[in-house]
Amino acid sequence: MTEVDLIVIAKWIIPVIPENTVYENHCLVVKDKRIVDITRVTDVDQKYNAKLVYNLKELNPNGAEYIITPGFFNMHSHSAMALFRSYADDVSLHDWLNKFIWPAEGQYVSEEFVRVGTQLACMEMIKTGTTYCNEMYYYPEISAKVIEASGMRATVAAPIIKFPTVYASNENEYIDKGLKLIESFKDNEKIKISLGPHAVYTITDDCYKKVLEISNKYNLPIHTHLHETHKEVEDEIISSGERPIDRLNNLGLLSNKLIAVHMTQLTPNDLDLVEKNKVNVVHCPESNLKLGVAGICPVHKMQQKNINVSLGTDSAASNDDLDLLGEVRTAAYLDKLAYNLKNLDAQEQTSTPTAAYKILQMATLNGAKALGVDKDLGSLEPGKFADFIAVRVSNPPIYDPISYLVYVGTNKVTDVWVAGEQLVKNSKLTRQSEQEIRQQVQVFSEKIQATRPSTKMNIIS
Amino acid sequence: MTEVDLIVIAKWIIPVIPENTVYENHCLVVKDKRIVDITRVTDVDQKYNAKLVYNLKELNPNGAEYIITPGFFNMHSHSAMALFRSYADDVSLHDWLNKFIWPAEGQYVSEEFVRVGTQLACMEMIKTGTTYCNEMYYYPEISAKVIEASGMRATVAAPIIKFPTVYASNENEYIDKGLKLIESFKDNEKIKISLGPHAVYTITDDCYKKVLEISNKYNLPIHTHLHETHKEVEDEIISSGERPIDRLNNLGLLSNKLIAVHMTQLTPNDLDLVEKNKVNVVHCPESNLKLGVAGICPVHKMQQKNINVSLGTDSAASNDDLDLLGEVRTAAYLDKLAYNLKNLDAQEQTSTPTAAYKILQMATLNGAKALGVDKDLGSLEPGKFADFIAVRVSNPPIYDPISYLVYVGTNKVTDVWVAGEQLVKNSKLTRQSEQEIRQQVQVFSEKIQATRPSTKMNIIS
Repeated sequence: MTEVDLIVIAKWIIPVIPENTVYENHCLVVKDKRIVDITRVTDVDQKYNAKLVYNLKELNPNGAEYIITPGFFNMHSHSAMALFRSYADDVSLHDWLNKFIWPAEGQYVSEEFVRVGTQLACMEMIKTGTTYCNEMYYYPEISAKVIEASGMRATVAAPIIKFPTVYASNENEYIDKGLKLIESFKDNEKIKISLGPHAVYTITDDCYKKVLEISNKYNLPIHTHLHETHKEVEDEIISSGERPIDRLNNLGLLSNKLIAVHMTQLTPNDLDLVEKNKVNVVHCPESNLKLGVAGICPVHKMQQKNINVSLGTDSAASNDDLDLLGEVRTAAYLDKLAYNLKNLDAQEQTSTPTAAYKILQMATLNGAKALGVDKDLGSLEPGKFADFIAVRVSNPPIYDPISYLVYVGTNKVTDVWVAGEQLVKNSKLTRQSEQEIRQQVQVFSEKIQATRPSTKMNIIS
Repeated sequence: MTEVDLIVIAKWIIPVIPENTVYENHCLVVKDKRIVDITRVTDVDQKYNAKLVYNLKELNPNGAEYIITPGFFNMHSHSAMALFRSYADDVSLHDWLNKFIWPAEGQYVSEEFVRVGTQLACMEMIKTGTTYCNEMYYYPEISAKVIEASGMRATVAAPIIKFPTVYASNENEYIDKGLKLIESFKDNEKIKISLGPHAVYTITDDCYKKVLEISNKYNLPIHTHLHETHKEVEDEIISSGERPIDRLNNLGLLSNKLIAVHMTQLTPNDLDLVEKNKVNVVHCPESNLKLGVAGICPVHKMQQKNINVSLGTDSAASNDDLDLLGEVRTAAYLDKLAYNLKNLDAQEQTSTPTAAYKILQMATLNGAKALGVDKDLGSLEPGKFADFIAVRVSNPPIYDPISYLVYVGTNKVTDVWVAGEQLVKNSKLTRQSEQEIRQQVQVFSEKIQATRPSTKMNIIS
């Protein structure tokens, strides 16, 4: 009889490794922050003596069953922008940035904005099952501290952009601040640092070279937007004579350290470069759809080439939620569309659209791989950290729990653990007061609303 | 001081008519099943004396605000197929039908299957805000009775198909049964009947002529699948020499009585035919994405031509939920993609992707228009039936309630009224026992699971 900290019981456990596998009537056994076993419910009493046994169905009694999976990796977040949720919609991307988002950022972004906005985003991310985010925004030291206080894990990028902002005035200052950030968090248990050069149209060649140097010296991932829109690619060809990915290739940026976000505009040659250099791709299906980027990240082709693809929400200003389970479903749908639209010319019969279990892998293990933390995270295996979530499945029948989890949009994450600590219990945060976060958001959003450019909606009050 | 039955208070009311309008701090006033007023909260006490005042924020205390909108119209449902939810996924459409769905229908469809499956679907539809469904399946007399008992409204199609099934053996028998159905429900308050010829590949010319005759005689809508897949169009050109819509046009079927579902494969000429004949289109974005139909219903082009487009889920076997609020969001996204993919050739600058308030209209008023019931339903206006829903908006901030409702995927319908009767109260059914429905579903799904063809998933139990 082994003493353990926690036993969690659910009808189904989807461990992600082994692939396409479901444990039925099993429980997850946790000790010292880590998973020690996944064992049959009928056997557990003979094997373990637990401080706490958490039987999901009994503790949340509503006649529904539960699925346990690894916590989600949100591989592209600008958390503080949650304060701009539904700030401007149904305008062209050009107007969205120029008339709404950039002026709003100029007017409102501050340390306080980042503190309150990141709290809001963390509340939503944790409650919808994200346990790790790959973050990029101004004042990263603030967001890192807020994320740490929430109980989540993160890799936080040092943002770098050639334009002056309230945070820094030129590329060198961003880099200097980044070096301090690396120093501050070098021994942190849950927060890791990466480098965040914004995009080809906002970074000079000299700056990319410095980024590469620092990445090599400290062994840090490089988190960047790449091939997001048709316009980005066309503009880069005009300005540098190269496609964005070719420019990065010539600068030596393409490697398994690079986390390239969006990738909606890819030629066969672009895909070959990604494959050959083991670049990590982050697909943000909902943001891409909403912003009308005029392309689809070709996940099925990347699967065929064993390219590591993970999922991100992008910011709540272009999504408008930070719910990875929704992103999983949209990614599955969008890849079927991409596959079938292209497939009409019968030239691509060798690939297939991406199956549900592969999409779930994208939301979990593949994020961990991109960030270099898959030894400890991303699947439910003995020895890994006990970062896992419970999803209530309230619409019977369920024939295949993995398909069900991916394709039914009405599922709900109800319970979340990180390193064995329960951060969400029956849909409520345990560490923080939701009420307090909401109150601070309310104060900020009233200021923003007061100066928001008017839209065409008719309000009768 | 006027005596009324019910006053419902929410932060925002979106009436759909007037267009793109939000009432802030207003309440909805109901008497004798109908809306009598929408008035300021500050004025209501001086004007009305109500038997019941329902203040959403106070009655569902969680710090969140509420939006009231008209109940949704699910314009294409095969309700009983909810028993096949996640029965088979990630296979080709051909295998999905031939190896999974059709054999399963042959084996399991019965009066009892339709009774239990329709109960399951109604439970989900009502709880997610659908108050009216445009239904099509075998044993329509059973589904009509189940829908009526649930408290929802429906137009139920008499199904017609040239193949023998357990329900009828040939087109004539389907039609005879349809005529009896029309008779049985001719004076029903909530259930109306339509004609449901399945699709061009399952209906003969003679049968279409009879359908048209009966539709004219009884003034009934004709509910049919049309231009769903690339293959359907190609096959029809081979078999009849015509595109499906041209064949229906030559037979005289195109009119404002026709409700054409899917319409993902349309040439400019097809669109002109739809416009000229005022055909109603039903867009089923999630089912189309999942089944890989190789096309997108071009909603923005239809908006430009003032074609009446509404929204449907299709069955839970190809969706896998019956949640209209999710469908609204997917429709908004998918239309932006369709617009932006096409727009790269810069030939279509005159149209724009469909704005949020137009998508909400598609889910409500446009359904009522297609079914000829928009005098009484589809918007929140004095004189219309009190069919409305409350949505809890739990992710602040909210700058534009319409955009928020359409684009934030984590909203939840909590309360639903039909003809002034509250069918869902704080997320629970009031008329029926959810537990009882689940138990019957459990019995049925165990039988189905026992003989379901195996998929590749590895179950460890």
